[in-house]
Amino acid sequence: MSEITFKEWENFDFRVGQILEVNDHPKADKLYLLKVDLSEKQIQLVAGLKSFYKPKELLNQRVIVFANLEPAMIRGQKSEGMILCAEKDNIVSFLTPEREVPLGAKIR
Amino acid sequence: MSEITFKEWENFDFRVGQILEVNDHPKADKLYLLKVDLSEKQIQLVAGLKSFYKPKELLNQRVIVFANLEPAMIRGQKSEGMILCAEKDNIVSFLTPEREVPLGAKIR
Repeated sequence: MSEITFKEWENFDFRVGQILEVNDHPKADKLYLLKVDLSEKQIQLVAGLKSFYKPKELLNQRVIVFANLEPAMIRGQKSEGMILCAEKDNIVSFLTPEREVPLGAKIR
Repeated sequence: MSEITFKEWENFDFRVGQILEVNDHPKADKLYLLKVDLSEKQIQLVAGLKSFYKPKELLNQRVIVFANLEPAMIRGQKSEGMILCAEKDNIVSFLTPEREVPLGAKIR
């Protein structure tokens, strides 16, 4: 992959958020509708995590949110960001801060 | 901050890595020289984590590496990426996968 400059990276807004609600997407079997608290605001996300996590495994967890991703409508539901996950060999894990950091903390 | 398209995001290469070595930067009090295993390759990073982590707190940890950041020379040492950390109110934490995922796993 081509290299990215530090200046380009600075345009990205990744934040520590907390999952407040986990609901089934009404029109897609593999998707959740999540409500996530970013401290400054709460957002709704559509996340393809249903095959990998039960709702109770996500609820209240601290996650990393790509907060200035262009919003999209996914099967009729607004998605205002993305939860960063690691994936290899069909194993999927969300990312989390190793220490307790305040909600809304910026990723640098 | 302005919005980022999903297509722009796809140019970024973030990987799960493991810290193999932690050494003092020979010319900078607050910097470590880290050796990180990304599975496909091992890289050297300069990281400003010395005020926040002891070497033993970093050694062998799984971290998230910005792997295609433009390499830089930092005080005479090559830095081939960046370890993603959350920061707020002077609390700093590296990010880690919540589950065991294979080394080199890509962040999506």
